[in-house]
Amino acid sequence: MAQDHTVKSFDDELMRLRNLIARMGGLAEVQLASAIRAVIKRDSSLAEATIQSDGKVDDLEREIDDLALKILALRQPMAVDLRAILSSLKVGTDIERIADYAANIAKRSLALNQVASVRPVHAIPRMGQVVKEMIKDVLDAYLNGDVEKAVRVWKRDEELDEMYSSLFRELLTYMMEDARNITASTHLLFIAKNIERIGDHATNIAETLHFLVKGAPLREARPKHDETSYAVVKPASAGGKG
Amino acid sequence: MAQDHTVKSFDDELMRLRNLIARMGGLAEVQLASAIRAVIKRDSSLAEATIQSDGKVDDLEREIDDLALKILALRQPMAVDLRAILSSLKVGTDIERIADYAANIAKRSLALNQVASVRPVHAIPRMGQVVKEMIKDVLDAYLNGDVEKAVRVWKRDEELDEMYSSLFRELLTYMMEDARNITASTHLLFIAKNIERIGDHATNIAETLHFLVKGAPLREARPKHDETSYAVVKPASAGGKG
Repeated sequence: MAQDHTVKSFDDELMRLRNLIARMGGLAEVQLASAIRAVIKRDSSLAEATIQSDGKVDDLEREIDDLALKILALRQPMAVDLRAILSSLKVGTDIERIADYAANIAKRSLALNQVASVRPVHAIPRMGQVVKEMIKDVLDAYLNGDVEKAVRVWKRDEELDEMYSSLFRELLTYMMEDARNITASTHLLFIAKNIERIGDHATNIAETLHFLVKGAPLREARPKHDETSYAVVKPASAGGKG
Repeated sequence: MAQDHTVKSFDDELMRLRNLIARMGGLAEVQLASAIRAVIKRDSSLAEATIQSDGKVDDLEREIDDLALKILALRQPMAVDLRAILSSLKVGTDIERIADYAANIAKRSLALNQVASVRPVHAIPRMGQVVKEMIKDVLDAYLNGDVEKAVRVWKRDEELDEMYSSLFRELLTYMMEDARNITASTHLLFIAKNIERIGDHATNIAETLHFLVKGAPLREARPKHDETSYAVVKPASAGGKG
């Protein structure tokens, strides 16, 4: 009877950990959607609210860390339970980063709202839609242990990288056309980069789930990574310069 | 006798984990120094070598993860040993990110070398020096359990944030002066942002050590964070525009 109780309580703790991940993931999803909406709608009040809420995600990460530490110390779990708890810690870190990038997007939207809108902002809804779907799908996959779904998200990161790469070049060209576009374009560049990084954290979560379920790292052909680090765009008027 | 052997072997494993962190940290320091040197000296061959070496850091992180998992599973450590192992996992992640940012700096230096040099690049040696010292000091502090030294690094992050903030505004102004500066300035912006992010990971390591040694989070007045997300710079010629 005491034994039953102990085992039941351990299951309860694992369930509590899982629920914390689910809540934290849900909160990060809302933060991300609000941040992107704040950019698109030029809604400074929503941006402020999003920045304020970031602390809630950090609090949940600390709760996850504390509970995981407690389970490890008291239960000394083996094999798959141990891997599940370490995966929770990793996924918690990824979700915290996703929410942090969302808060940064919200901050930059406040700067954007102080200057005239620039044309390339129209890429943000599309990138935002893709990244929101990726985060939703990878969190669903993680909570349901659905490796195939996670791998599909992992592969989709390439799509996001390509959108970012194309926007990067468009923004550089746009800045060259008119110096008044530079401040807005720079913040848009960083917003797009933040979205691209959020996609990378979605792939991290997919990799963590793969390792948790399969016991081996995900090693297919990796999705292409952001290649804009190498990009050089020259202004039309400077074509002849050495 | 069997007991002694077990304990000795456990100490050996903890020492091995510590040595892996030390090696990984040393490697990340070299990667960071090479990346910054590649930018300053416009040395594409050094940049290529730095990009190539990033895989070694990733391999060490996997070794750390595997060993930590093995120790947790076989030894089921309690209290401070358990915290030390979880800290190793966290610090390993931070070092991996530091090296990843260094590789990104090296990639961007290759793009910079394809265009004419821009004046604000002169801020990079100073920012690079500060961040290199922060990483060296925080790794020393972590390996020696020196919390006071770690807290000094944590506070120094403010200096780096201020340098980044000042460079951010300088680069925007510089782009506005001449469209031919835009590509180089954009890559410099991201290089400076990468350096600023590396500083954040140094503060993470300081916080992890503080929690490990003191059992409580580091909660003094936090160093100021990057405020450039809010920055708006207008070109001189557009002063009258609404």
